Amino acid sequence: MTPEEIHASIYTMGQKARKAAHSLSLLSAENKSSILRAMAQGLRDSSAAILTANAKDITAGSSKGLSGALLDRLRLDAARIESIAAGVDQVADLPDPVGESLETVTRPNGIIIEKVRVPIGVIGIIFESRPNVTSDAAVLCLKSGNATILRGGSEAIHSNKAIAEALQSGGEKAGLPEGAVQLIPFTDRESVKVLAGMDKYLDLIIPRGGKGLIETVVSLARMPVIKHYDGICHAYVDTAADQDLAVAIIDDAKTQKPSVCNALETVLVNKDIAEAFLPKLAQRLQVRGVEIRGDEATLAILPNIIAASEDDWSTEYLDLIISVKVVASLDDAVAHINHYSSQHSEVIITTDAAAAARFQSEIDSACLFHNVSTRFADGEEFGFGAEIGISTDKLHARGPMGLKELCSYQYRISGTGQIKDIARQSGL
Amino acid sequence: MTPEEIHASIYTMGQKARKAAHSLSLLSAENKSSILRAMAQGLRDSSAAILTANAKDITAGSSKGLSGALLDRLRLDAARIESIAAGVDQVADLPDPVGESLETVTRPNGIIIEKVRVPIGVIGIIFESRPNVTSDAAVLCLKSGNATILRGGSEAIHSNKAIAEALQSGGEKAGLPEGAVQLIPFTDRESVKVLAGMDKYLDLIIPRGGKGLIETVVSLARMPVIKHYDGICHAYVDTAADQDLAVAIIDDAKTQKPSVCNALETVLVNKDIAEAFLPKLAQRLQVRGVEIRGDEATLAILPNIIAASEDDWSTEYLDLIISVKVVASLDDAVAHINHYSSQHSEVIITTDAAAAARFQSEIDSACLFHNVSTRFADGEEFGFGAEIGISTDKLHARGPMGLKELCSYQYRISGTGQIKDIARQSGL
Repeated sequence: MTPEEIHASIYTMGQKARKAAHSLSLLSAENKSSILRAMAQGLRDSSAAILTANAKDITAGSSKGLSGALLDRLRLDAARIESIAAGVDQVADLPDPVGESLETVTRPNGIIIEKVRVPIGVIGIIFESRPNVTSDAAVLCLKSGNATILRGGSEAIHSNKAIAEALQSGGEKAGLPEGAVQLIPFTDRESVKVLAGMDKYLDLIIPRGGKGLIETVVSLARMPVIKHYDGICHAYVDTAADQDLAVAIIDDAKTQKPSVCNALETVLVNKDIAEAFLPKLAQRLQVRGVEIRGDEATLAILPNIIAASEDDWSTEYLDLIISVKVVASLDDAVAHINHYSSQHSEVIITTDAAAAARFQSEIDSACLFHNVSTRFADGEEFGFGAEIGISTDKLHARGPMGLKELCSYQYRISGTGQIKDIARQSGL
Repeated sequence: MTPEEIHASIYTMGQKARKAAHSLSLLSAENKSSILRAMAQGLRDSSAAILTANAKDITAGSSKGLSGALLDRLRLDAARIESIAAGVDQVADLPDPVGESLETVTRPNGIIIEKVRVPIGVIGIIFESRPNVTSDAAVLCLKSGNATILRGGSEAIHSNKAIAEALQSGGEKAGLPEGAVQLIPFTDRESVKVLAGMDKYLDLIIPRGGKGLIETVVSLARMPVIKHYDGICHAYVDTAADQDLAVAIIDDAKTQKPSVCNALETVLVNKDIAEAFLPKLAQRLQVRGVEIRGDEATLAILPNIIAASEDDWSTEYLDLIISVKVVASLDDAVAHINHYSSQHSEVIITTDAAAAARFQSEIDSACLFHNVSTRFADGEEFGFGAEIGISTDKLHARGPMGLKELCSYQYRISGTGQIKDIARQSGL
């Protein structure tokens, strides 16, 4: 396709999405739920077609030499399709975020100002290999009254198309507006550029994937971008820590699922307890097969570990590796975290409420835990029902981003003829 | 200055601002208020220096041939400086938005999640001629715990520098952190580019000025931008309108201050009442000296007015001109507004509550009024105390943007050792 054809094709999708967004904003909560259930059924009905399409992606991936891990992320089977469909049903059952009255104020002049939650409009989602994102992102946007334009990676193009078609054909039966869920059916790189420049039709763009993808979108986008960067999460073990509890939390946060953004990467230990605590921690981590990289003071206590380099403090391992540093004080821990953290999630382990309060108010991160594993930084765990991701941004949405964060608001003001120029209130 | 020198100078300011933002986040409400009062006093103490600097700008502006209106916007006198200082004192007295608990949830597993309002961090403000923006923007950001880097226009550079210095020297006496309020002391165009690219230190950028400035910032910025575009505001006069009230509201919204973004630009009149209503409206607008530009149906009723062109429907006149169109129904009014509006503010005049509810829920604009002049789309009128502007964006802040909208939030989670892997809860 020529750049002009790509441009024309995506702008046509944009125009349709804008029209669909208006139709979606008029649907009742019941309408949207029944459309979502029909979309789930569409996935089940198209299971065979989705598996055939997925087989094409797997064959292409194998011959392109994709790694086993990547092929596994790409692969669908009947159980995975059912789990995607069940996810859609779950979203159908969540409370509708749209139309909720957030605040009502009556002003001294009698005007009543109501702040109401409304959809954002049209959301662009750019994502990489996992085909389930096609469904997850589309249904969360739909539930919150938004139209979506999806742009997936080339590795999953056949699967993505089949899933999008299944969602559309299922949804249409229950009144899904045309253009409400659209997938760009080609993966030319130019399409990212066109999408990111289309602020005429797109209100928000969310890149889901690696740092390279996010960076590209950030530099091209003319509309707001919500970024889900990496998680360089820290634990600080205070002098007043329950040390067994500290071991359990660090163990869980590092090893329960090391490949995710809310997993722990660095432990800071107060010097006053380092000698007592570090051997206990090392013993547990050894059982789990975790490699420890320590600073000089840690090495002095745990001579058999690896020395950490400066790079370790800013590395998201996503693996069974952890960096450990001895710090002189809570202040030093706060300063280290504010310098090296990706502002995702941090935890203090202490029985000292004042220390916890300082940790939680002096660190500029989305989620600050006290005596709780960082693995709880998650939309489901926060009670959001589902999440589109965890924002490392500070504007609009920060931390776990659920249905409410996929909404905007609007002011509805009513009165009895109030005008600004009071002198004229009685007419000419 | 070379581009490299500009880059180095602005990055040094960014680094200082980031450090200052951390200090600001630790200040109490009382600390910030007394700093703000000292800044107000700083402006009063430096009144002579500010006037001398302003005279330089006025001389330069005159010899550059600036229009009388522009020179008037630029000109300061003792009364204007006192009014700027009084504005700072007012902000000092507003309630502190930082630290407020927005929501607290206890989850079934016992963890307690508190959502707390926190500062955004470092905010860049790029603005054009009016020197009072230097003070207004800096103090609103400071009150909300943010550091600012200001970049004003070349016409007001001497005034802006004098005002920034007055704010800094006044504030320092009461503990203003170094780097909390900084003005870029040069106006090379390169500085906008460097600022917009500095996402390492800047969390948000707000361009205040014309469409050209906003467009430039949007295309360059790597961080969130909050845009304050123009206001193409509409009134719809329904069949069930109190026609005298409609005349009064349209008169007020158009003529009380035509140069502002919440002034009215287009009136849509239902065909069923057009013949009765339009002559009354025309009579009032004629008294005010307003030029009416009408569509064919309006011309048929008011033959002496000017014919509207397609361009009129998307023009922000900011002047005593108004476009008028006869529409067949509420649906047509909604469709016209959703097509031509800049999504700022619209008003319906009707006694029919159902029609008002449809108007207020089907139009995608920030502020939807019912029987109230659009001139009330304003932070002061909304009870925000002060506003940094009126956002035409849908993410983060929409409509009047006050101190709360200059804040982000953070989650503070506490527990008793909750870990994700429940099977391991009791240890190894």
